[in-house]
Amino acid sequence: MRDTAQTLSDAVKGTGCKQQLDNGGWQILNEDVSLPIAVLNQRALNNNLDWMRRYAHASGVSLAPHGKTTMAPELFHSMVDAGAWAISLATAPQVAAAHQAGIKRILMANQLVGKANMQRVGRMLEQGLEYYCFVDSADNAKALSDYFDGQGQTLNVLLEVGVPGGRCGVRTDEQAMALCDEINSLPGLALRGLAFYEGVIGGADAANKIRQFVQRMRTLALNIYQQKGFAAGTISITGAGSAWYDLVAETLEAASLPAEMQVLIRPGCYLIHDTGIYEDAQAAVMNRSTLACDLGGDLINSLQLWAYVQSIPEPGMAIIGLGKRDVAFDAGLPVPQWFAHPGQQAAQKASASWKVSKIMDQHAMMDFDSDAKLQVGDIVGFSTSHPCLTMDKWKYIAVVDDNLCVHRLIKTEF
Amino acid sequence: MRDTAQTLSDAVKGTGCKQQLDNGGWQILNEDVSLPIAVLNQRALNNNLDWMRRYAHASGVSLAPHGKTTMAPELFHSMVDAGAWAISLATAPQVAAAHQAGIKRILMANQLVGKANMQRVGRMLEQGLEYYCFVDSADNAKALSDYFDGQGQTLNVLLEVGVPGGRCGVRTDEQAMALCDEINSLPGLALRGLAFYEGVIGGADAANKIRQFVQRMRTLALNIYQQKGFAAGTISITGAGSAWYDLVAETLEAASLPAEMQVLIRPGCYLIHDTGIYEDAQAAVMNRSTLACDLGGDLINSLQLWAYVQSIPEPGMAIIGLGKRDVAFDAGLPVPQWFAHPGQQAAQKASASWKVSKIMDQHAMMDFDSDAKLQVGDIVGFSTSHPCLTMDKWKYIAVVDDNLCVHRLIKTEF
Repeated sequence: MRDTAQTLSDAVKGTGCKQQLDNGGWQILNEDVSLPIAVLNQRALNNNLDWMRRYAHASGVSLAPHGKTTMAPELFHSMVDAGAWAISLATAPQVAAAHQAGIKRILMANQLVGKANMQRVGRMLEQGLEYYCFVDSADNAKALSDYFDGQGQTLNVLLEVGVPGGRCGVRTDEQAMALCDEINSLPGLALRGLAFYEGVIGGADAANKIRQFVQRMRTLALNIYQQKGFAAGTISITGAGSAWYDLVAETLEAASLPAEMQVLIRPGCYLIHDTGIYEDAQAAVMNRSTLACDLGGDLINSLQLWAYVQSIPEPGMAIIGLGKRDVAFDAGLPVPQWFAHPGQQAAQKASASWKVSKIMDQHAMMDFDSDAKLQVGDIVGFSTSHPCLTMDKWKYIAVVDDNLCVHRLIKTEF
Repeated sequence: MRDTAQTLSDAVKGTGCKQQLDNGGWQILNEDVSLPIAVLNQRALNNNLDWMRRYAHASGVSLAPHGKTTMAPELFHSMVDAGAWAISLATAPQVAAAHQAGIKRILMANQLVGKANMQRVGRMLEQGLEYYCFVDSADNAKALSDYFDGQGQTLNVLLEVGVPGGRCGVRTDEQAMALCDEINSLPGLALRGLAFYEGVIGGADAANKIRQFVQRMRTLALNIYQQKGFAAGTISITGAGSAWYDLVAETLEAASLPAEMQVLIRPGCYLIHDTGIYEDAQAAVMNRSTLACDLGGDLINSLQLWAYVQSIPEPGMAIIGLGKRDVAFDAGLPVPQWFAHPGQQAAQKASASWKVSKIMDQHAMMDFDSDAKLQVGDIVGFSTSHPCLTMDKWKYIAVVDDNLCVHRLIKTEF
C-alpha cells in the first residue's frame, strides 16, 4: 500500500483534468466511463519499466519478462522497448498472440506438448519467430524432435531442472546430464540453455534454499558447457519469477560466466505490481539486495479498480459493484484505497479500517466506518494482490494519468 | 461426479467419430485442437434445458435464468427457446451484450448505479428492450427517477429485500413499505415486483431459515399488492439462485397468488452444472423436493476441461497444462475424470484416487497412481466446481458431441 497510496494521493490532486478531457480523455470521477473499471496508472508503468531496466543493467542480467501476467501485446512492446531481450510466455496460444502483435523473440517458459500446439509453433517459426521452449523429459524431447525435424525445422530448447515436490523439471544432475545427451542425439533440437523456476521453493529458510539451488544450477550449466553440451551461439541460464529475481541474479554471477552465456530473469509482475503478495516480495528484495536498494526508487503499484457503492443496507456495510468477475481474490481481497462522490475533482483517501470482508461473483462486501459520509452512488478505488488474475478478467484495461483521466485502452489477449 | 462419469463413459465410446470429422468436426483425442480447451457436452446442455423447463412447468413458476454464469448469448437464446420468460444479468455491460445479441427481455438482478450505466440502459430502452432492475434505497430510486424521467422514460424496478449480514436489499418490512411509497412517489419509476436472493442465507438449518424468509417475502408482496403498491400489469416475485430454487418455488405457492403475479426463479448454473458445489446443491434439491424427484431425470454436468500431461517429474506426480487461467479453483479444484493417449478412439475413466493437489496460474499438479500408464503428452479430462469462474476464462467454449468431436464454438461476452 505504501507506494500506491502515495501514487494516488498524487493521482487525484485534480489539476489538469479539464485540459485532458479537452484532449479526449474520459474522467472516471465524472462518470464518463461505465464502472467497474480496471485501470493502469501510466506514471507507475513508466516508473516500473525504468526501475527494472536499471536493475537488470546494474546486475548484468537480461530480461525476459513473463507476459502471461498481462497478455497485453502493447505492454510487451513497452518492455521490449525498455530493453527486454525476449518476452516469456506459457502456452502456444499466448505465443501466437504475441507473435501476431509483432514480438520477435519469445521464450515459452514451459513445455511444448501436443500436435496442434507444435503445428502452431512450427508455422510461427516459418514466419521468422525466434522461439525457445523448455524440455524436461526424453518423451517430450523425442516428440518435439520428430515433429520439427519432420518439418525440416530445428527447435531451440532449454533443459528445465526442478525441485522435489515442485513443478516441472528433472530433479537430479544425473537426470539433467542424461537428458542433455538425449537432446543432443536428436536431429530436430538445439540445446540453448538451462532453465529453472525457483518460485516453488518456499517454507522456512526459503532464501537460503533458493541460493543453494541456484548455485547448483550455475555449476550444472558450467558442467554442460564444459562438456560442450550446448549448441553454438548464445546460451541462456534462466530462472526467476517476480519474488526472488535478486537472489537468482546475484547467485548466477553473470559477470563471471563465459562470454556466450547470459543470465535471463523472467519476472512477470513488476510492470503492474500490486499492494499484496508482490509488494511484500519486493519489500523483501529491497531488504536483501544492496544493489536493488542503491538503485534509488522502487516499484509502485499501477493497477486500480474503480467501482460503485450500490447499496448500504446496514450502517458501515457497503455492497460494491465489484466481484470475482472483475478482480483477483486468490491472494488477498481487494483493498479499498480511495473514494469520491461523482463529479468531485479528486478522490479522498479511504480509512485504513475499511476492508472487503467477502467477495462474490459480482459483488464485494466492504466494511467501513459509518461516520464516513459514504453514499450509494459513490465511487471507491481499490488496489489488489496478484495482478495476473485481475488482468485476465478484462478484455480492455484503461490507462489513466494522475488525474484519473482515461486516455486509451489496452487490449488483452487471454 | 455421479452424472458426469456416466455422461463421459457414454461420451467416449468412440463410435461415429470418423463420420463427424468428415462433417467438419475436430476430434479432441486426435489432437485436432490446441489444448487446454473448455468444452460443453451438447447432450448434457439439452438434458439440462429440458429438465429445468419441466421443473418450472410442474412448479408453476417462470424462469429468468441468470446469464452471468456463461455470458454466452447463444446459450441465452437456448434458454429463451426452452421457455424462459427473461434472462437475468448482473451489470449494464452484461445487459448490453445480451441486448445486442437479440435478447428482448432482461431482468438486471442488481442495482443500476452511475451515470454511464444509466445512459447505456436508457439507449437500450429506446431501442425497445424490456428491462427491469432492483432498487433497495431511496438514494438510488431518486437518482434513477431523475435520470429516466429526464429522458422521458419510465424504468421498471423491483424492490429488493435482503437479510442481515447478507448482500443488497432493505432489511425490514417497514423499510420495504417505506421504499415502496418512495418509488411510487417518483415519476420515472414503475414498481413491477419484489426481489430477493436467499442464497446468502447459510449455516445450520439454512433450509428452514430460507423457508421462513421466503414466506415473509410472500406475505410482504401480498401486502404491497393489497395496498396497490405495484404498477398495473404483470407483477414478479423473484428469488432463487441455483441451490434453493425448489424451496423458493414451493414456498411462494404460485398457484395461489393473484393472477397477475408470477413467481420468477433465477437459477444460473443449471444449464452448465458441475461436479462440485452445484452437484451437491442439486442432490439436496432432489432429496428435498418430491416434485423435482418425480420429474424423472436430473441435471448433469456439461463442462469439461481437456489438457495435456506436460511433465511427470516424479512417479505419481503429473504436471498438467491447466491452471487458474483456465479453470475455476475457488470452490474446489478440478477433478480428473478421464484420460487417453493421443489418437485413441475413447478416453478411459481415471481412478478415483487421482487428484489435483495444487493449482498455479498455468499449471495443475495432479497426483495419480503410478501404476497407471500415464505418459507425457497424454490427455486428461477434468470436471469442475463453480462453472461461472471457468466460463469467464474463455472467449470461446467448444461444444462437443458424445464422441468428443467439436462441432462449433460458442462465443462468450465477458
